[in-house]
Amino acid sequence: MTKRITILGSTGSIGTSAIDVVRSLGGDFQIVGLGARRRWRELAQQCALLHPSAVALADESHADELRPMLNGSTRFFGGPPGLVELATLPESNFLVAAIVGAAGLESTIAAVKDGKTVGLANKEALVVAGSIIVPLAARTGAQLLPIDSEHSAIFQAMAAGRREEVHKVYLTASGGPFRTWTRQEMADATLEDALRHPTWNMGPKITIDSATMMNKALEIIEACWLFDLHPDSIEVLIHPESIIHSMVEFCDGSVVAQLGTPDMRTPIQYALTYPQRLPGRSERLDFNSIRRLNFEPPDFERFPALKLGYQVARMGGTAGAVFNAANEAAVEAFRNGRISFGRIVELIEQTLGRHRLQQNPDLETLLSADAWARQEVMACLES
Amino acid sequence: MTKRITILGSTGSIGTSAIDVVRSLGGDFQIVGLGARRRWRELAQQCALLHPSAVALADESHADELRPMLNGSTRFFGGPPGLVELATLPESNFLVAAIVGAAGLESTIAAVKDGKTVGLANKEALVVAGSIIVPLAARTGAQLLPIDSEHSAIFQAMAAGRREEVHKVYLTASGGPFRTWTRQEMADATLEDALRHPTWNMGPKITIDSATMMNKALEIIEACWLFDLHPDSIEVLIHPESIIHSMVEFCDGSVVAQLGTPDMRTPIQYALTYPQRLPGRSERLDFNSIRRLNFEPPDFERFPALKLGYQVARMGGTAGAVFNAANEAAVEAFRNGRISFGRIVELIEQTLGRHRLQQNPDLETLLSADAWARQEVMACLES
Repeated sequence: MTKRITILGSTGSIGTSAIDVVRSLGGDFQIVGLGARRRWRELAQQCALLHPSAVALADESHADELRPMLNGSTRFFGGPPGLVELATLPESNFLVAAIVGAAGLESTIAAVKDGKTVGLANKEALVVAGSIIVPLAARTGAQLLPIDSEHSAIFQAMAAGRREEVHKVYLTASGGPFRTWTRQEMADATLEDALRHPTWNMGPKITIDSATMMNKALEIIEACWLFDLHPDSIEVLIHPESIIHSMVEFCDGSVVAQLGTPDMRTPIQYALTYPQRLPGRSERLDFNSIRRLNFEPPDFERFPALKLGYQVARMGGTAGAVFNAANEAAVEAFRNGRISFGRIVELIEQTLGRHRLQQNPDLETLLSADAWARQEVMACLES
Repeated sequence: MTKRITILGSTGSIGTSAIDVVRSLGGDFQIVGLGARRRWRELAQQCALLHPSAVALADESHADELRPMLNGSTRFFGGPPGLVELATLPESNFLVAAIVGAAGLESTIAAVKDGKTVGLANKEALVVAGSIIVPLAARTGAQLLPIDSEHSAIFQAMAAGRREEVHKVYLTASGGPFRTWTRQEMADATLEDALRHPTWNMGPKITIDSATMMNKALEIIEACWLFDLHPDSIEVLIHPESIIHSMVEFCDGSVVAQLGTPDMRTPIQYALTYPQRLPGRSERLDFNSIRRLNFEPPDFERFPALKLGYQVARMGGTAGAVFNAANEAAVEAFRNGRISFGRIVELIEQTLGRHRLQQNPDLETLLSADAWARQEVMACLES
């Protein structure tokens, strides 16, 4: 079956890698839609190269500049509703959901509602609204395929047994740029420090999330939703080389792991070609040069975000929405130089502490919780 | 489906572990047949405990002592033909083939001919007669399930993709007790030295094979037969901790590995419960105490057996039978103090060098090649 692919977040790190992968696969893999939030120049270049049948730009202020640069046969959808229209493009059967943050939520839900296969790089969508997306996918038959390298690894390892035979999941973590820093050293880390990831080359938001280990916290919650796991059955394991992307322990004691060079093209391609595998272009592992894989337990004192991640996963309800929104707002404030690195997780914890948890929320309630958390962080900044 | 299990080689290391596993599984797993070569006292004790419906003892000189110790309802089969009768027991649907060496060949072939599922610990059977056993299994529908930890790992990892997507197999090796010894030090290693395996607790023949790395050479050939691999697609990787039991690299660059504590009960149980997994009693991996996994390339100069293994796998025909028989005879001579450790592989290489290879051999030709190789080694010892 030809995969007719729409990429939301096409100008970001995952999006551009996804385009690379689709172009290298060729043949049965075609790009039919491209969407971005702001970067209209890059989007125009991608359209000139790939001739998608539709394109969306969430930030309409540059719509008038982008539009004349498009091929006559390319439809244009503007504003946030444009992302939703692109996600439900009738001629597409596969959505790469790669918009960062809660901004990708609506379009991801729309594609799931539409029964499309979704390659999910937008982990925040599940953190905020897993309680809506997962049952919705079960109803519409939409398949959710993880693009996060860790969740792709878990998904691949799970093929070696049955779901009910899974005893435990090891979620590996590089430990980020501050793995060996003291809490005091971290408190005043600069933006430059935080953006210096030791193994992965990723976008700025996820790189800062790796530095706080909020990224791993979000991944715990994402794994619970994707694989129907209890947080207690997930163990975070620090593995600085980022070679083992995660592992599954089965009830018989066997552990199955997926390994690879730290290259997002591998999990992106796996999602795109699933249930097949096709030849890939990422660099191969060479154990004779790797020589050594290291493991250490995570430090919950230096990285309190991890503890919060487990708590939020257990709380359910609106907790994920608040956790994610507070993080997005705090990371933004850190990037703008308004708060120190150490304040990011403090602000998230304070916001969670003030939140009145609601169980079984509908989407509107989740979006209000998200908005409330952002306001709370803002209020803290101004006080 | 109830698994009605016959264990050939029940008094050996794999056999006793298999009995442990079956007893811990209980319920749908019953032992119906037990067979051994010589150790009639242990066999009598196992019969008293397990009440099999039939028992076989290859060495008939103790038949008269064993027989009166058996329960009235337990049938007795004596001599090498007795092993074959036990392997084809109508009331059994699963054979654990755990007789060491070519001595287990006939009974393994008989069970395959009978269409039984065979849990294969007797790697020598495939090394000698893979060219007969594999096509025979395809005809009768007999399933061959690996019990070697490495091949069980490959089998489990292969579930993460399709056969045609496999690009390469990493066959891991502890490196044995002489991993860090010079060739000169190894030349005069004692039997005691050779039996001191760093990670696995196994029978004496396989432990000496690990010291020469003949075990890994035999496993290369076994893997070629079990998984229809070309020897060039198998890479031996030294991994001293014996935690990663082997790995499969798929065409997309993903590597899937199976890990576990070095405990043969895990692969034995996997073969017994396949395609299911059931809770197991082996110790669990604890990465916080493991901390580090190491890898190094194998040293073909210090361990020439490995080079021979690849050569024999490429030669096919009668080469495997000669390779295995020469090894069995040389190991026996080393255990009896007749040759030094360094002579084992030299004798194998010399015997292979004098062999006139025959392609497409029938079983009789393979057995003659086996007998010829043993005589050659003997002749060298006496000259």
